[in-house]
Amino acid sequence: MLHPVVLSGGSGTRLWPLSRQNQPKQFLALVGERSLYQETILRAAALEGVQPPVTVCSEDHRFMVGEQLQAIGIASGGIVLEPVPRNTAPAIALAALHVLAGDPEATMLVMPADHLIEDEAAFRQAVATALGLGGDGWLVAFGIEPDYAETGYGYILRGEPLSGRDVGEGGYRIERFVEKPDLATAEQYLADGRYAWNSGMFLFRAQRYLDELGRHAPAILDAARKAYATPSPDLDFTRIDADAFALSPSDSIDYAVMEKTDRAAVVPVSCGWSDIGSWTSLWAVAEHDADGNRNEGDVISIDTTGSLIKASERRMIATIGVDDLVIIDTADATLVARKGRVQDVKAVVDALKAAGRTEHLFHRKVYRPWGSYDSIGVGERFQVKRIQVKPGAALSLQKHHQRAEHWIVVSGVAEVTCDDRVFDLRENESTYIPLGSVHRLRNRGTEPVELIEVQSGSYLGEDDIVRLEDVYGRS
Amino acid sequence: MLHPVVLSGGSGTRLWPLSRQNQPKQFLALVGERSLYQETILRAAALEGVQPPVTVCSEDHRFMVGEQLQAIGIASGGIVLEPVPRNTAPAIALAALHVLAGDPEATMLVMPADHLIEDEAAFRQAVATALGLGGDGWLVAFGIEPDYAETGYGYILRGEPLSGRDVGEGGYRIERFVEKPDLATAEQYLADGRYAWNSGMFLFRAQRYLDELGRHAPAILDAARKAYATPSPDLDFTRIDADAFALSPSDSIDYAVMEKTDRAAVVPVSCGWSDIGSWTSLWAVAEHDADGNRNEGDVISIDTTGSLIKASERRMIATIGVDDLVIIDTADATLVARKGRVQDVKAVVDALKAAGRTEHLFHRKVYRPWGSYDSIGVGERFQVKRIQVKPGAALSLQKHHQRAEHWIVVSGVAEVTCDDRVFDLRENESTYIPLGSVHRLRNRGTEPVELIEVQSGSYLGEDDIVRLEDVYGRS
Repeated sequence: MLHPVVLSGGSGTRLWPLSRQNQPKQFLALVGERSLYQETILRAAALEGVQPPVTVCSEDHRFMVGEQLQAIGIASGGIVLEPVPRNTAPAIALAALHVLAGDPEATMLVMPADHLIEDEAAFRQAVATALGLGGDGWLVAFGIEPDYAETGYGYILRGEPLSGRDVGEGGYRIERFVEKPDLATAEQYLADGRYAWNSGMFLFRAQRYLDELGRHAPAILDAARKAYATPSPDLDFTRIDADAFALSPSDSIDYAVMEKTDRAAVVPVSCGWSDIGSWTSLWAVAEHDADGNRNEGDVISIDTTGSLIKASERRMIATIGVDDLVIIDTADATLVARKGRVQDVKAVVDALKAAGRTEHLFHRKVYRPWGSYDSIGVGERFQVKRIQVKPGAALSLQKHHQRAEHWIVVSGVAEVTCDDRVFDLRENESTYIPLGSVHRLRNRGTEPVELIEVQSGSYLGEDDIVRLEDVYGRS
Repeated sequence: MLHPVVLSGGSGTRLWPLSRQNQPKQFLALVGERSLYQETILRAAALEGVQPPVTVCSEDHRFMVGEQLQAIGIASGGIVLEPVPRNTAPAIALAALHVLAGDPEATMLVMPADHLIEDEAAFRQAVATALGLGGDGWLVAFGIEPDYAETGYGYILRGEPLSGRDVGEGGYRIERFVEKPDLATAEQYLADGRYAWNSGMFLFRAQRYLDELGRHAPAILDAARKAYATPSPDLDFTRIDADAFALSPSDSIDYAVMEKTDRAAVVPVSCGWSDIGSWTSLWAVAEHDADGNRNEGDVISIDTTGSLIKASERRMIATIGVDDLVIIDTADATLVARKGRVQDVKAVVDALKAAGRTEHLFHRKVYRPWGSYDSIGVGERFQVKRIQVKPGAALSLQKHHQRAEHWIVVSGVAEVTCDDRVFDLRENESTYIPLGSVHRLRNRGTEPVELIEVQSGSYLGEDDIVRLEDVYGRS
């Protein structure tokens, strides 16, 4: 059986300020209305005779993954939580152990969560080809036929065409993997015709992967086995042994397995693929107007060409006489960069880290398992938050030492606990949570609850919170 | 006696998005901590033996003018309110009538409210020179010695040097006024040495101005006289007859008087003058860092040169690899323009007008006579405002047909009227104003009141307000 495995480990900041550590690229709706992760799951689920997709993601992103899966209504094959990032070889090992537990003959289709594929028919055709090779014991990499001489990707040089029992046309033995080339070399690769971009997508039988991993990187296999020895399921999530997993070497599947095994195959495909590795690549794949602009949101452009401009909610952007810019606006940060220089977004993120700031970690609107909050106003001794609570969700039972809170419900029905009272608060009703009171906010309804919280006190930091009970295990 | 007259009629949008119709350039702190208007008043008040400065401004800006005057603690010679804009000749006529009412021998120093002068000593020297000429019956224009071949200003060509009783050196008969030149002509003017920029600053005896106005533009004089016939003082403000003033032709002092009188003189001066007529001129007069950047607020610049970057409150701007840009951020709009193209800000403002929008009229934070409000959050059936009420100020007694309001005081003590109850609300206290209740908010204290208002209802427009009483004459 074919089990799609979606790797959502990336915490990329290359699309800052839109991507942040707690909401990386794969969870953003960059092209169209769904996130790249959702598109990847839907692409996997659309394959013929496929099992529900498995996701491997960071602990920190588990609620976002759960919510995004729920929003598209696709049954999950499980969400394996990585306690620490260890690169792709260990993550895929966890996924292999996970699928093998229910299907000893499992074949895995490994897909990064943050890639775009425009031609799904071509992709499905390539998967069909890879399936034949996988059944024959090959470890298959998907190679993207290059459109131009890209220097930012590794390449795969194909060798002889492969054939065999149940193996159709279209697969090749891998001659070798090559590192990111310089421009001259990339142009040579492009002219040669036998080189393809290494897409990070793979297909193989799960057991074959573990066998090869055991042969070429036994420490990784050992750590993954120990970490997955006593998986603890929690809703759709599978928690593993964090200490055991932390002992795994950190390595990519390319280095750990694909470059070492003698059964590496490549299926070249041309499927409108992009890894959207920078704002410039997003600009390149997005539709443009006649001036080469991609404008999203409330934008007025005058004599502007070749630019990517994203306005944020309740804010407009006007441009005059500019070319080849990337302008990305969010609630708390705006980026203005020359299109050819977007790789230096990393330098901005480094500067934020060095200054002990948080604009690379969180958006002003912060997602929590129970919903979200957004700090819409701050003064010397007060803060105003807009809080959304999902149906069925509850914040922790908590108290604050330094602040009192006023709550005004503006949508839905909130159940409020305040010391020994429990009562409902409806739209246009308010209540007061005195300093030191033990309180909780819960949504027992079927509609989201939205409320405005006005905090008043001498210290208003997020760390003034004593959690007494928490359904999400945070107390 | 010398009476400074500050003309604050401009509603320029050339510095959009920072300048808006209800808060134009002269009221912004563009260079330093005080506004251009405040700097102009202080410059006038620092002249030797000078009378308190008179301001001519639009009705709409009267509270801003009053507040800005109060903030710098300068006694006012009165604030004459223009009910409609009619350009400078009628405005100066009103000011002349105003100062003549108290001083039949009055001399006026006319200064636009939105210019920058860096060398005040040179300016004072020029005023002294002009005073001699004014006493001798001349109408004096201040000409700025050009630093470079500017094509955006009109020029004044000087003729023979003037002398006479009490007239010192440094004044010239005006040979002629010339329109904005093309670049070649401007370069010729610069090389010639006898041309100066027309600064819009003038000095003359008030009666001489009216006499010349009566000779060359009698309809303007007639309208101004009728409008000022029965001035109605209101605190520091002088209201005039709006219908009479509306009948005045609209014309500049240059066209209506200076180009026609045979007693026009010019005093050339080099005093670090700028009209800050665009973002580029602000960049030019502001201090730069080593890369030619002027960064204000929370800005991270990487490989950025020759740019003016202004971040707004609670928001950061990051730039990478850009040159010669103007980036101006405000709560609801961001401008990104090539420095050489900032004159096209007008096109953006025109687009906003054409679309029936308001970003050229108001900031998100709106100033009112009683203080200000800022719409910090909006949802389907609610809005959150941050409201500030000045000491001693009161909102109108009012009611709403479509919304209820929750008020939470976060600073100061508010006096709340709600139907037949009147009570105080202190920091961390809240109240509820039901739909249809007659209510008022007042600050009887000496500290500003700040409160958070959460509006709840089906329609939340500013026009759902029935004003029953208003101390500012708005009911």
